[in-house]
Order: sequence, then structure tokens, then C-alpha cells
Amino acid sequence: MVRRQFLMLILVAGLSNGTGHAQTRPGERYRALADTIVTTALRSNRSIEMLTNLVTTTGPRFSGSPGADKGVVWSRDIMTSLAFDSVWLEPVMVPRWVRGPVEKAVVHASPSRPAVELSVAALGGSIGTPPEGITAEVVEVRSFEELRALGAKAKGKIVFFNRPMDRGFVNTFMAYGSAVDQRGGGAIEAAKAGGVAALVRSMTTRINDVPHTGGMGYADSIPKVPAISVSTQDAEMLSVLVKSEHAVTVTITMSATSLPEVASANVIGQVTGSEHPEEVIVIGGHLDSWDKGVGAHDDGAGCVQSIEALRLLKSLGLRPKRTIRAVMFMNEENGLRGGIAYAAQKRPAERPIAAIESDMGGFAPRGFGVSDSTAYSTIASWAEVFAPMGADNITFGGGGADISPMMKRGIPGIGLVVETQRYFDLHHSDDDVLENVNERELALGSAALAILAYMISEEGLPQTGTSPALLH
Amino acid sequence: MVRRQFLMLILVAGLSNGTGHAQTRPGERYRALADTIVTTALRSNRSIEMLTNLVTTTGPRFSGSPGADKGVVWSRDIMTSLAFDSVWLEPVMVPRWVRGPVEKAVVHASPSRPAVELSVAALGGSIGTPPEGITAEVVEVRSFEELRALGAKAKGKIVFFNRPMDRGFVNTFMAYGSAVDQRGGGAIEAAKAGGVAALVRSMTTRINDVPHTGGMGYADSIPKVPAISVSTQDAEMLSVLVKSEHAVTVTITMSATSLPEVASANVIGQVTGSEHPEEVIVIGGHLDSWDKGVGAHDDGAGCVQSIEALRLLKSLGLRPKRTIRAVMFMNEENGLRGGIAYAAQKRPAERPIAAIESDMGGFAPRGFGVSDSTAYSTIASWAEVFAPMGADNITFGGGGADISPMMKRGIPGIGLVVETQRYFDLHHSDDDVLENVNERELALGSAALAILAYMISEEGLPQTGTSPALLH
Repeated sequence: MVRRQFLMLILVAGLSNGTGHAQTRPGERYRALADTIVTTALRSNRSIEMLTNLVTTTGPRFSGSPGADKGVVWSRDIMTSLAFDSVWLEPVMVPRWVRGPVEKAVVHASPSRPAVELSVAALGGSIGTPPEGITAEVVEVRSFEELRALGAKAKGKIVFFNRPMDRGFVNTFMAYGSAVDQRGGGAIEAAKAGGVAALVRSMTTRINDVPHTGGMGYADSIPKVPAISVSTQDAEMLSVLVKSEHAVTVTITMSATSLPEVASANVIGQVTGSEHPEEVIVIGGHLDSWDKGVGAHDDGAGCVQSIEALRLLKSLGLRPKRTIRAVMFMNEENGLRGGIAYAAQKRPAERPIAAIESDMGGFAPRGFGVSDSTAYSTIASWAEVFAPMGADNITFGGGGADISPMMKRGIPGIGLVVETQRYFDLHHSDDDVLENVNERELALGSAALAILAYMISEEGLPQTGTSPALLH
Repeated sequence: MVRRQFLMLILVAGLSNGTGHAQTRPGERYRALADTIVTTALRSNRSIEMLTNLVTTTGPRFSGSPGADKGVVWSRDIMTSLAFDSVWLEPVMVPRWVRGPVEKAVVHASPSRPAVELSVAALGGSIGTPPEGITAEVVEVRSFEELRALGAKAKGKIVFFNRPMDRGFVNTFMAYGSAVDQRGGGAIEAAKAGGVAALVRSMTTRINDVPHTGGMGYADSIPKVPAISVSTQDAEMLSVLVKSEHAVTVTITMSATSLPEVASANVIGQVTGSEHPEEVIVIGGHLDSWDKGVGAHDDGAGCVQSIEALRLLKSLGLRPKRTIRAVMFMNEENGLRGGIAYAAQKRPAERPIAAIESDMGGFAPRGFGVSDSTAYSTIASWAEVFAPMGADNITFGGGGADISPMMKRGIPGIGLVVETQRYFDLHHSDDDVLENVNERELALGSAALAILAYMISEEGLPQTGTSPALLH
């Protein structure tokens, strides 16, 4: 194996020295190098090692929590230990929401039935309840339209939003999109209708007893009511009770509260370009997670893949012409403060040319989604490089939440697209743990990021958009 | 949702009635139908329900065991309950190997160290040891060549085959192929070298304490010695001991034995073709499993996907022009008797036109491998139908073990190709259980089989090979 790797490195050197291949396609020229990166990522298996190290060091990394602070230190230390050219923090203030010790929902159906406790999780950002809880009758709806049609009937009630994610979509992000309005806007709509709380079916296609948390919002002009998610299994059960009993009452008790903002940081490390150090390719994920599980997939995976991509290039002796920068964004889950701050930061000496994000979980890569039409055409023409790992599905449109503020400034955004079938089984729940990450799938994602970032660093990336706001 | 499904069915009816689309590509004509099949498979979610039912009814289904007998009854009953046009058994005799209660390997390094028990699993087909076990010094090799080079030094020793699967392959079946000769031929090569037993590193890229069993062989002219697999973690540990200690002795004790052959059966159910009932498309998997885990992926998945493919077509009111036949093959794991018997069976009134197998685990489908060059060209031209589910990678070359006897007779063999990263984490081990199957990935495989079988039933499948032996 040593011998084979040595031969491949010779081949790589021959391929990357920029001579004698003027008329070949980039996809053709980089194919052997890409295979070497993939093989090295799989053999060295450092992605899972790094993720294990991260999650066992930090536990959950919810914004403003001690775990998030540990994540900042961990990220800085690992990039420093890997001898990246520069490693630094960029401070950012983040919201501090605290779930607290109590989150409980108890169903009282008819007097003849015993009370039943539901599997619930407060939604991130929700207010709490009085200590004695909120007790009210439940009214079940499947949509905001249905709720509005109820008129005064929702007044004083706990509004139970129970429209399932549509399993019929192949892409589970589409299924998520088909239902997540209930989580994001349920509290507002419940309050508008005179309701006293929002009880929202968990965002997953699985039927089990694990509640899934996630972000929710309030509107300034609308009273705030508490919002809590319920496991799909208990949502089904509650729905049956609501339909079969005269009146079903639920008591919701939550200690959730919002504290003052606290200081945190994005963590940044880079390998500086040898020819165009001022041209910067960002690769990143978000360092914060929810406070359920440990954020192994969401988005510990994207963080370690970004770091591993740079480590892979360094370990193969590849110095990029342009700067490749790994960014661990803070606070994607409940504020996006890190992504906003990164894009707003003045960097007069720099020209950002691409922002790549991995935030769909550490599953087998299938391709990239590219936001800029010209950048898309270029990357699509490189697809053959990603074919051996099955990641050659390059689509127009894509990006990621953390890089969306950069995309708004005209920088091409690129999202690593993965196999999505298992993501919402564990997303924002206690099941987002290391045991549910496959080491090979994770490593392939690292390789895909490394290859794409390196190709952009060598070839540049013609683009339609401009980014004047960042140029000066 | 009911309304949408109804509209899609109207569309389907329009598409499948054979009129008004003479100049369009089949891929184009079937695309809407394919999407309906996928959506229905995901929404109805019957694949995982069926697999749960199978494995909880049978437990492991090792050939000749009570679990395999239960699997035969279960398969017949479920296809009968789904009102397939015909359901029947085809008897086949199978080998009956029994692991027995004892499989143990204890390491004695230097007298100062305590004895250590290894995680082991007898290899299928191995002879046992005397009740007191076989005690001998261990000699470690990485290849048969290395063993041969040892000459007389292997005499009287336990030969420890410790070459890892090469993690560097993207396709884990290639990694498996890089190491599995040690399991299949280790006992023969050990005996040739004068060794007294073969101790084989488990076939997995993971490092953990779970041993993986699997088939092994003997040669008539070579003495038989016992063969047992050891977990990768213990293989690494043993290797360190062998290198650091003067002499490492192991005692292997195994109660494995072979009993007389017993009667079993392939289980067959079909939907009979409306226009060419004599032209038969086989879809199948193997009903038997190893006696470790419950064979949820290997190959409970392939069995339920084949049945579900037919159920999906029936549920959508699609009657195929040609016969589609689901075959649950018996004894793929340690004899292939079912596959051989099926192909050898005289079926004078039939013309087999394709044999499709799912036996790579119930993971997300990525395409098909097709053995026959003409059939390959046809199916490759249909790729766009499989694109929305990401299963449009159609390759030349493929098939499956159970259908290989049919392929030898010239029938095009087609293997469902899936994402392979996780398969060898659990293959032939106690980890091949229901919890490691994702319901959506499994359902997508069912949909892929249904679509391909239905398109072949409607369009036929021009082929290079001929199958004269089966025609009469």
C-alpha cells in the first residue's frame, strides 16, 4: 500500500504542475488526483476520529452554552495542531435560550382514562409557561388555513399542529419543507387565533417516541404563546383521542426562557494560496448544534469535513494557488449570527470567490448544488471527477444557511448534497449522536469538499454574480 | 393526497395504454409512472412493515434451520394474502451445517499475562475441533503467498490470516473482494502448509468486537482443519501480541458440525402477464440468511423488496403484459442450491427474459448492473426514469449469486446496485438486524425493482444471449 500511494503521488505531482495538458478537460486532468484524495480520506479515516473527538469533548454545542464554548476552543486547537497557516476567532454575540429542567405535556382525556405524559421537547426560542403550566382543551389542525377557518373555536385552546411531513418526496428536505411552517410559525398562528399554546408534531417521517426540537419565531405585534413539539407516535395517539373523546385537555409545563446575549465566535483556519492568497474559497459548517443529542450530523459532520478537507490537501503535499479557508460558523440553529457576521466583516485585502457548505448531515455525498449560473456551468463540467464516489450530480441552485449572507452579496454558494433518506430520523433530536454516523460516508464528504475546493483554487471559478460590498 | 393520487393514476393510465406516443423515448413515457411508484412506495411504507414481520416471525433463516422453514411458510402466506396470481414452492435439498453451542478462542501469551478470550465466530461449513479444542502456536500471515513462503514454519501452527479489507475502495464490495480469499480458502491453504486451523480476520472495514461469519471451503484432496473468524479489534490485538511475544498460543474450541442434507424450498409467486404470460421476468432475493443477526439486510431486504414490487404494481392497478415472478431463493449463503435448482427446473412453456436480484442490502438504490450487452443498452436508455430517486447509474456487468445459474444459461442478469458504505459493517454478523435498516432506503429499492420489472414487462428486453437450455 505504501508503494501504491507513492506512485499515485508521483502521478499527482505530474498532474498538478500545470504543464503539458492545455487541451485536456479539467475533469480529466484532476481525475487521478481526486481518486487519490478519496482513497486517502477512506484509508486514513480521520473524519470520524475528529468527530468523535469533537462530540466527546463538547457534548451538545447549543449557542451560548458551555458546550459551544468548548467547541470554539476545540476547533481552534485542532486547526492549530494541524499547522494550518492561520487560525483565528471572529467574535460574535449570540442569543442565549435555555430549555431549563422542565418540559412536560400531560393529556387528560375522559375522567375514566389515566393521564398520559407525551414525549415532548420545547421549541427553541419559545417562552415558558407559569410554574403550574397551561391547561386547556386541544384543537387539532393540519394547516394554518384550517386553523383560520375555525374562527372563535380556537380561542383559549392549545392548538395542535399535526400535518405530517409528506413521506412521498424522495428528497427528505422537500418533505421537511412541506411541514416545517407549523414549527416555525405555529406559535404566531396559534396566538392570532386566540390560542394559548402551540403543540407541534415533530419534523420527521419516522413514527417513534423521540421528539424533535428546532427553531420557531414570534411576531412583535402578536402575543407570545409557548411552543412545544411532540413525538410523531404521541401525535398520532393524541389525534385519535381528540377524534374519539368529547374534549381532550392537555397541561403543558415548560421552564424555557431567554437570557441576555452572550459573546461567542466563528472559528477560522486557512491554508493560504501560493499565487493568489487574496482570492478566498470558504468551506464550512456550523459549530453550534441543538441541545438535544450532540449534533453529530448537524453539523459536527460539516465542521470536521471542512477541517479534514484541508488536512487531506496538506497531507498530500498540495499547496493551493488560492486561499482555502475553513469556517466553523456559530449560531446557525437559532439566529445565524455567525454567518451574518462573517459576511459583514470588512476584508479589504480579499476577494471571496466561492463559499461551500456541508450542512445536510454526514451521509454519502451525491453531488453539489451551485447558486451562481456561471459557477454552476463550470462545476458541472467537472462532474466526472466526482463520478467514482457517486457525487457527480451537480445541480443549479443550492448553498447553505451559514453562507446565505455571503450569497446575498453575490458570492457563489455551493452546498454539498448528500443522500437524504436518514437525516430527519435524527435531525434536532436525541438521536443525532455519533453512533448514527457512518465513518465511510463521512469521509467521502470530506474528500468531496477537498477535491472541489482544490479544483477551484487551481482553476478559479468564473461567476455571474459580483460581490462589490465585500471588495472594499 | 387522495385526490393527487387519483389524478396521477389517470395520468398513468394514459401513459400505459400504448397509444399516441410512438415517437417518444420509453424513459420519457414512463417517467410519470415511475414517480407515482416511488411516491406510493414511500407513502405506503410497506417494505419495512413486511421486513419487520419477516424477521420477527423467523429470526435468522439459516439453511435447514427451523427459522428457514418459517421463512418458507411466511413467504408463501404473504404472497397468497396479497392475492398474487400463483404462489408455489419448488423443493430443494440444502446442506445442514450447525454452529453448535461452543465457539471459543483463548489466547495464551507469556505466562505472566492472563489468558484472553477472543470474539470469534465459526465459519460456515467448518468442521469442529475435539472437545478439548486445538491448542497451537499462532503464525500470522497477510496472504497465501506469505504463508507459502514460510515453508515448514507453519507446520503444526494455527494460521492467522490478518490482511484487512482495503478501506480505500469507494465500493465496499471491491474492498471485500480484496480480502475474502482468506475466508474462503484459508482452511485449505492452512492445511496445505501443515497448519492445524485457520483463524481469519473478519470481513469488515470497521474496527470493533463483532465477528463476521461467512462461507468457506475444503478441497477433497487436502485435510480438513477448522476455520474461525475473529473480530477486527481482536485481530489487531492478537497481531500486536504475536509481534511482541516470543510465542503466542491459542486454544480454539468449536462444536460446529455438518448434518445430513434436509428438504427445503424456493418460494415463488407471480403476477401473470396479460399478453405474453410465457415470457417471464424474475425478481428475487435469497430467503436464507446466516445464523448471526436475522439477515435483515442479507437478504431479508431483497425478499421483501421483490414481493413489495409486485404489490406496488397491483395496488396501482397495473397488470403487466409479461409475467413478473418474485422468487425467494433458498440457500444462497452456503450452497446456492436454490439458485441452481431454479435454473435447472424444466419450464417448457416459458421463455425467461430477465432475472433481477437485490442482494447488496436494503440501502439507497443507485442503479443497476446489467450482464447482457444488448439488455444493458436498453436499460441504460431508460436511465432518466430512475434519476429522480438517484438510481440512474446503469453499468455493464452485474447480476447476483442466486441468478448466476440463469445467467450461465444466457438469461440477462440484473443486479440492483445500492449505496455500499454501510453493508460490511453488519454483513454476516449479529449487527444484521432490523434496527440497521432504514425504511425509506428499503422502500426506494422496492420502487426501483417495480419500475424496472414493469418497464421490461411492457417493452420487452432485447438481448444478446440466448437461453436454449431453458426453452425445452
